[in-house]
Amino acid sequence: MTKLVSIGVDVGGTNTDVGIVDREGKILSRKSLKTGEYLTAESFISQLCFEIKNLISDEEILGIGIGAPNGNFFTGNIEFAPNLRWKGIIEVKNLMKKEFNCPIFLTNDAKAAAIGEMVFGKAKKMKNFILLTLGTGLGSGIVVDGNLCYGHDGLAGEMGHTQAVFNGRECGCGNKGCLETYVSATGIKRTLFELLSRNISETPLRDFSFNALNSKIITDFALQNDSYALESFDITARYLGIKLAEVVAYFRPEAIFFFGGLSQAGDLLLKPARNYMEKYLLPVYCGKISLSISGLSQDAAILGAAAMIWKENL
Amino acid sequence: MTKLVSIGVDVGGTNTDVGIVDREGKILSRKSLKTGEYLTAESFISQLCFEIKNLISDEEILGIGIGAPNGNFFTGNIEFAPNLRWKGIIEVKNLMKKEFNCPIFLTNDAKAAAIGEMVFGKAKKMKNFILLTLGTGLGSGIVVDGNLCYGHDGLAGEMGHTQAVFNGRECGCGNKGCLETYVSATGIKRTLFELLSRNISETPLRDFSFNALNSKIITDFALQNDSYALESFDITARYLGIKLAEVVAYFRPEAIFFFGGLSQAGDLLLKPARNYMEKYLLPVYCGKISLSISGLSQDAAILGAAAMIWKENL
Repeated sequence: MTKLVSIGVDVGGTNTDVGIVDREGKILSRKSLKTGEYLTAESFISQLCFEIKNLISDEEILGIGIGAPNGNFFTGNIEFAPNLRWKGIIEVKNLMKKEFNCPIFLTNDAKAAAIGEMVFGKAKKMKNFILLTLGTGLGSGIVVDGNLCYGHDGLAGEMGHTQAVFNGRECGCGNKGCLETYVSATGIKRTLFELLSRNISETPLRDFSFNALNSKIITDFALQNDSYALESFDITARYLGIKLAEVVAYFRPEAIFFFGGLSQAGDLLLKPARNYMEKYLLPVYCGKISLSISGLSQDAAILGAAAMIWKENL
Repeated sequence: MTKLVSIGVDVGGTNTDVGIVDREGKILSRKSLKTGEYLTAESFISQLCFEIKNLISDEEILGIGIGAPNGNFFTGNIEFAPNLRWKGIIEVKNLMKKEFNCPIFLTNDAKAAAIGEMVFGKAKKMKNFILLTLGTGLGSGIVVDGNLCYGHDGLAGEMGHTQAVFNGRECGCGNKGCLETYVSATGIKRTLFELLSRNISETPLRDFSFNALNSKIITDFALQNDSYALESFDITARYLGIKLAEVVAYFRPEAIFFFGGLSQAGDLLLKPARNYMEKYLLPVYCGKISLSISGLSQDAAILGAAAMIWKENL
């Protein structure tokens, strides 16, 4: 019997990763493309289809799942993604349907990761949970009663663009004070720079430019007890904890998982975030919400994309 | 053929209303009980069962739907309702099952009203919408993909207890700054009292005690251009609009409906709330979210409770 596999595609601004994924979440083979090298979306998708066909030998493709920035599950399009060189609407699903006669699903990266958590990770038996990706921005995949919350047009679940601070930090979306300007790999850098501007004591962190800094460096300094780095984590955790209390009141998830660069700080972020969350939770939820790091490996993006297909075939 | 009917029960702190409701949302007969007169929950439920049986002649009961403060759909219990004289957990569904051999559903009043809106009101063809009841508190029924969002234990959808103001007004839940302390019939009274305390100009509203005041009176004064009443509405609408922008980012509803005492102010509240919401919405949602008054009559509570049964039999 031919082996059934799903294709997982993770479209990123720099690289696009493709993997052949089996039912157990094992990546059987993989390939990487330089997203930015393709002048048109059409030439990129043409090459993507070619690479997928190349990866397949005698397996049967059950379907293709694609996680992409601003990917809309309802339309199958990438819509106005700021981090891709191709502007406007890219009809990914329609373009790929010309090459493949199997189901093709597209969604954004955080929503794909949430499905990955449900199919391959820690949320296997959960019906209500939330996954937050703390990278350049803050993405959220919110699962309600076993399905992703897509809303009326596929654009629900934008927790990163709910307000954390009234009239707060400028956000790429055009608004101010959005959660992702405080709680993300970029957000903690901004918080650190705010602390450096307010205070005068010395720290080696004063030798980093904004662009040279990243959340890994801040984490390393925090682990060495640098007071600026530690305070940055505490402030970030406080913003996060307050908003977690809010998201619990809306969705009452069983658990909240964290993924992405900043989440690799682990307890440095999650322990104080849990304390702040508990402080602001409606009493009826206290002590009931689990916070933890995602159960998926670094390949979560590919696995999550492929999991969209497996979820439909469980 | 015997006529199929559903029973709708609206349990309130003062009165409990029972209605026999047909498929079209017509109340065929009804009865009211004084909730507060029953010393025990058991005696109350026993009388409630008796009254239901009395109302029925030759109709066949398809099921009984009950809306009650702190009603939990998952357990069928009223759990620690502050406005009822019976404390702790009341096993409403279990007690009634001894008397009726039909499906019995219990939920809280706002969630029941949302189902009423879906079955009998303006949300008939909607899969994603939100209903807010602006009464003593702020209740919310949030419909995701055609079903109420109950979360892991039935206690999702507590928008009234999400934070509107950090370290803000004292709330009955034990926290501070909850939305319902600003946006509800009680919230607008508190806002008016804050304005009266801050400013010195005269208004006949200075002759009302807190307990004598209600949202209807503030509405009437606003319609007569009383500046305190008008500013109270503007402040309330601003708090509401900011949080509506938030709830849209989480759920992307097609529409948001308003019910309850304060919502009867209509455009006095909804017009500025819409403007504030649009100001704070993520641009991708702008101009797409409809705000309006509920399509249900004053009998929404009975209709909503009965609608839980009809929804299962559509």
